[in-house]
Amino acid sequence: MRRAALGPGPEFDVLRRIISRQPDTAGGIGGRVVVGPGDDGVVIRGEYFAISTDMSIEGVHFRRDWLSPREIGYRSAVAALSDLAAMAASPVGVLASIGAPGEAGSALVEEIADGIGEAATANGALVLGGDLNRTLGPVVVDVIVIGDAPSPALRDGARPGDALWVTGTLGGAGAAVAAWLTDRSPDAAAVRAFRRPVARTAEARWLADRVRLNALIDLSDGLAGDAGHIAAASRVGIVLDPQRVPIHPALGGYAVEEALAIALGGGDDYELCFAARDGEVDAIADEFQQSFGIRLTCVGTVIEGEGVLVRTADGALRPPPASGFTHFARSDP
Amino acid sequence: MRRAALGPGPEFDVLRRIISRQPDTAGGIGGRVVVGPGDDGVVIRGEYFAISTDMSIEGVHFRRDWLSPREIGYRSAVAALSDLAAMAASPVGVLASIGAPGEAGSALVEEIADGIGEAATANGALVLGGDLNRTLGPVVVDVIVIGDAPSPALRDGARPGDALWVTGTLGGAGAAVAAWLTDRSPDAAAVRAFRRPVARTAEARWLADRVRLNALIDLSDGLAGDAGHIAAASRVGIVLDPQRVPIHPALGGYAVEEALAIALGGGDDYELCFAARDGEVDAIADEFQQSFGIRLTCVGTVIEGEGVLVRTADGALRPPPASGFTHFARSDP
Repeated sequence: MRRAALGPGPEFDVLRRIISRQPDTAGGIGGRVVVGPGDDGVVIRGEYFAISTDMSIEGVHFRRDWLSPREIGYRSAVAALSDLAAMAASPVGVLASIGAPGEAGSALVEEIADGIGEAATANGALVLGGDLNRTLGPVVVDVIVIGDAPSPALRDGARPGDALWVTGTLGGAGAAVAAWLTDRSPDAAAVRAFRRPVARTAEARWLADRVRLNALIDLSDGLAGDAGHIAAASRVGIVLDPQRVPIHPALGGYAVEEALAIALGGGDDYELCFAARDGEVDAIADEFQQSFGIRLTCVGTVIEGEGVLVRTADGALRPPPASGFTHFARSDP
Repeated sequence: MRRAALGPGPEFDVLRRIISRQPDTAGGIGGRVVVGPGDDGVVIRGEYFAISTDMSIEGVHFRRDWLSPREIGYRSAVAALSDLAAMAASPVGVLASIGAPGEAGSALVEEIADGIGEAATANGALVLGGDLNRTLGPVVVDVIVIGDAPSPALRDGARPGDALWVTGTLGGAGAAVAAWLTDRSPDAAAVRAFRRPVARTAEARWLADRVRLNALIDLSDGLAGDAGHIAAASRVGIVLDPQRVPIHPALGGYAVEEALAIALGGGDDYELCFAARDGEVDAIADEFQQSFGIRLTCVGTVIEGEGVLVRTADGALRPPPASGFTHFARSDP
């Protein structure tokens, strides 16, 4: 990897320190980085690149009394890396644009960048560059992720009769936000789910190697909303079975209906949701659980039609209890 | 290009409209876009990809009484595309993360996105995706650019004896900002330089095809600051000759010293600055001017040493009059 020396100035001092903390990259991904941090951009060798960008804004996606600076960075990067998981892409590199208040060499910016670096390393990616800016407004972190995707898993191939599966449990992060917004103390497990989510990049690759994923998405908007994206892209309907939705343990103290609303609409779980031919996943579910320590759960079925419906206890179909997280529509957090 | 249908919701209505206004992409770059807008990320085929990210924040990089929403988008995208020019990379695609106040289907976001699309199209790139968010703070636009860079031009190869050249004229955008910040009316040409900068992507490719560019950078921080990046990366010194710096006509009304300070330190010109062996560029300067309608000017020389110095009228060397734009150090705009 070729790294340029940066010019003088406090912005570049911060960049220099961030870059110097990168893991040694001889071989592996580092060998594919033709131009590394320090020039006007990075240059990577590849063949099929998946690229996604995800912006996290203080006051919208998080509050600074909810997250440490390092957690802000970590969580912002996981949100972006989760988009690579949602394509069954293998992470390669991460860039980050950060806007933060404060002076030259700000510890805030460095701690945010360290959190981004931690998430990148955990997912096998290198921090390749970025853009640091002072702002007078809320903290803004935009994380750009680059992955190898020779055969990306998309959203548009779900077929009537497919089973809909999710990884892990849902609603943990939503439980923390729901508690904070109503001035209650969230469960420690809920706080952890919000602060330390996991991008399921390894899980997605594992699944893609074993099952034909007719549609794959990550759960950032809540199961109801994200299943809606699969339904729209695949031009099918999806019926969710609420009795089977794996509710996060942190929602144990909630009434059933409320727990379900948070699990279906809370967002920020970053679990995977995928459609596969009925019967194809059951055979690998145990091995998945042994490999990753989380479960695969079938939560619904794909039907002819459109949109997402929920099957009630008496077998009737109704709209989901809560819509997904919609930035341009919801009230202030 | 494969485009997924997006799910329901006002955020996605905005995305749908933005995507629908893309130019027809059959063949050309479109044929290399394996997965286009609408999925969790895009997938592009390539070999050597240059990637860069550039964040523009209201109150730091622009004010909303200085720029229309469309100009905010256009200018943010040019700032990012200029980083591709600075590597002599050919633009392929653009992604944008936008944070903006306002309600569902906001005209503000759409106009910003239209400006980004205009700049992308002008530089031969497609808008491939992005992330739209509501914010309670200032408008934030992060533009991610992707280009082909089989042989990128870097910053680190300037050698003592090289000549330092710039394209176009310097200080136009700085003149507008200087006037606005002191409650004067800027010259119309200065306003245009600030609102409608040009990313010199075609110029950079043209030069790279004809001259060995030992070092190349774009002028976003001002000539003094950016020459400093070349000097640091190449481990050389640079001497600027202020008498030769091509001052933007909008600075005609300024005292010589003040005009020079703005031209050297004002930033946001997005012209190219490059080092090449002495004598190699002169032979193509006329053809460059005929091709692009702007001039190539030799503004200095590379020496053994470090840092950037300015040659005064009596031949002495002194530090530049103003430092480059430093986000984490300068006072509020």
